[in-house]
Amino acid sequence: MDKLIVIKIGGNIIDDENKLSSFLNDFASIGSKKILIHGGGKLATRLAEQMNIPQQLVDGRRITDAETLKIVTMVYAGYINKNIVAQLQAKGCDAIGLTGADGNSILSHKRIHSTMDYGFVGDVDAINSSLLQNLLQQGLTPVLCPITHDKKGQLLNTNADTIAQETAKVLSAFYEIELIYSFEKNGVLLDVNNDNSVIKKLNATYYRELKTEGKIFAGMIPKLDNAFSALENGVKKVIIGKAEEIHELISGDKGTSISHD
Amino acid sequence: MDKLIVIKIGGNIIDDENKLSSFLNDFASIGSKKILIHGGGKLATRLAEQMNIPQQLVDGRRITDAETLKIVTMVYAGYINKNIVAQLQAKGCDAIGLTGADGNSILSHKRIHSTMDYGFVGDVDAINSSLLQNLLQQGLTPVLCPITHDKKGQLLNTNADTIAQETAKVLSAFYEIELIYSFEKNGVLLDVNNDNSVIKKLNATYYRELKTEGKIFAGMIPKLDNAFSALENGVKKVIIGKAEEIHELISGDKGTSISHD
Repeated sequence: MDKLIVIKIGGNIIDDENKLSSFLNDFASIGSKKILIHGGGKLATRLAEQMNIPQQLVDGRRITDAETLKIVTMVYAGYINKNIVAQLQAKGCDAIGLTGADGNSILSHKRIHSTMDYGFVGDVDAINSSLLQNLLQQGLTPVLCPITHDKKGQLLNTNADTIAQETAKVLSAFYEIELIYSFEKNGVLLDVNNDNSVIKKLNATYYRELKTEGKIFAGMIPKLDNAFSALENGVKKVIIGKAEEIHELISGDKGTSISHD
Repeated sequence: MDKLIVIKIGGNIIDDENKLSSFLNDFASIGSKKILIHGGGKLATRLAEQMNIPQQLVDGRRITDAETLKIVTMVYAGYINKNIVAQLQAKGCDAIGLTGADGNSILSHKRIHSTMDYGFVGDVDAINSSLLQNLLQQGLTPVLCPITHDKKGQLLNTNADTIAQETAKVLSAFYEIELIYSFEKNGVLLDVNNDNSVIKKLNATYYRELKTEGKIFAGMIPKLDNAFSALENGVKKVIIGKAEEIHELISGDKGTSISHD
């Protein structure tokens, strides 16, 4: 089985031109097959402000109304995705940017919730593995942005962590997958206030222990639940750490390496 | 040789939701292999106004400064391209949207002009025919937007008519190509004020005659020069007419059919 590295980068890298450029240098130089998934960043919020479109937040979550969907489609699928692709091309990586609508790569449905309306938010139904395999086989590197579609003509705003996880799961039937979630911290921390308290290795048993002791901070739990779900569904390794240290994350010298046991 | 239909649509269709939807129905139902190239439309201008970014026009041409490039990238590659792709997917056409950066599909260079600076405008150097062939062979329908790149990391705003022409030329080595330029008129008109004076067939000799007599209006000349250049470079047929009548343009019942002799 070929190795395939699936990397999710977050807003902290996207919002910093120098950090992004340096990350893309490292990403382009990864020897194995690879897929990049990027989130949004602050640009969408800034554009909404510039256009005087009020952003609705309910319980800290942005509601994707029609105008906001337009903005995130422009920013994620247009500005961010195409600038990443152009930079990767300049660095010798034959990147191709995709929303879920392109080649029907990610099918989703509009989220239905009993008490609240998230707006045009999509939950993933299916990843088109044969499309991604064909592109990878042609030597292309897919760059996925968090806009999907329902195959009824509606684009939908979708969580990038989930896209990374589902893509990794589906492709684990064909590749030996390492899934890397990069964020602003050095890894999963034993003490949230100490950036040097990185947990090197985390398995399911240790994770349960840490949760019981209340040592894993709240924001980390969905990320780790996602990681273990990926491991239970064929993904070989999940790594959490800083995008600036991508080669060290892959080699195992930095970050938190998560395995099933 | 397989038949391949290359269609360029302009702003008048893109700006009208109903017309666009109806055109995309017709486009999706074309039986042969096909490529769609779309231009911009008024949305970019409206967004620039909303964001208070002044548009510089020199001799009627928009200058693409850095902020304008950002806007056209968001609007053309993001909003317009992805909405077209999502709609085509809903209509059973397996579309994939591309800028010139994606898969290095269209390489261009920043326009150099002795007396004026057009800004981030690209002139086409090369179309990646093997990428487009691979996508077509997978059953995908490429949807190209007028943003290209220089493979040095710079995105560039590029004329959609030129992209259509260059794409048709390069692919004529592998397919029997019909190139359709759609616009707001019924075809090339003998009398610019009479929409029923469509010239059914136009060859090089007749075109020279009409130009000498001053019967071809100015805006039409670059389009027709493009058309004859395409015919001299392997394209089998060029058709000019209304996007609303795409099936009649293909069947030869409407529009102007242009051939070399």
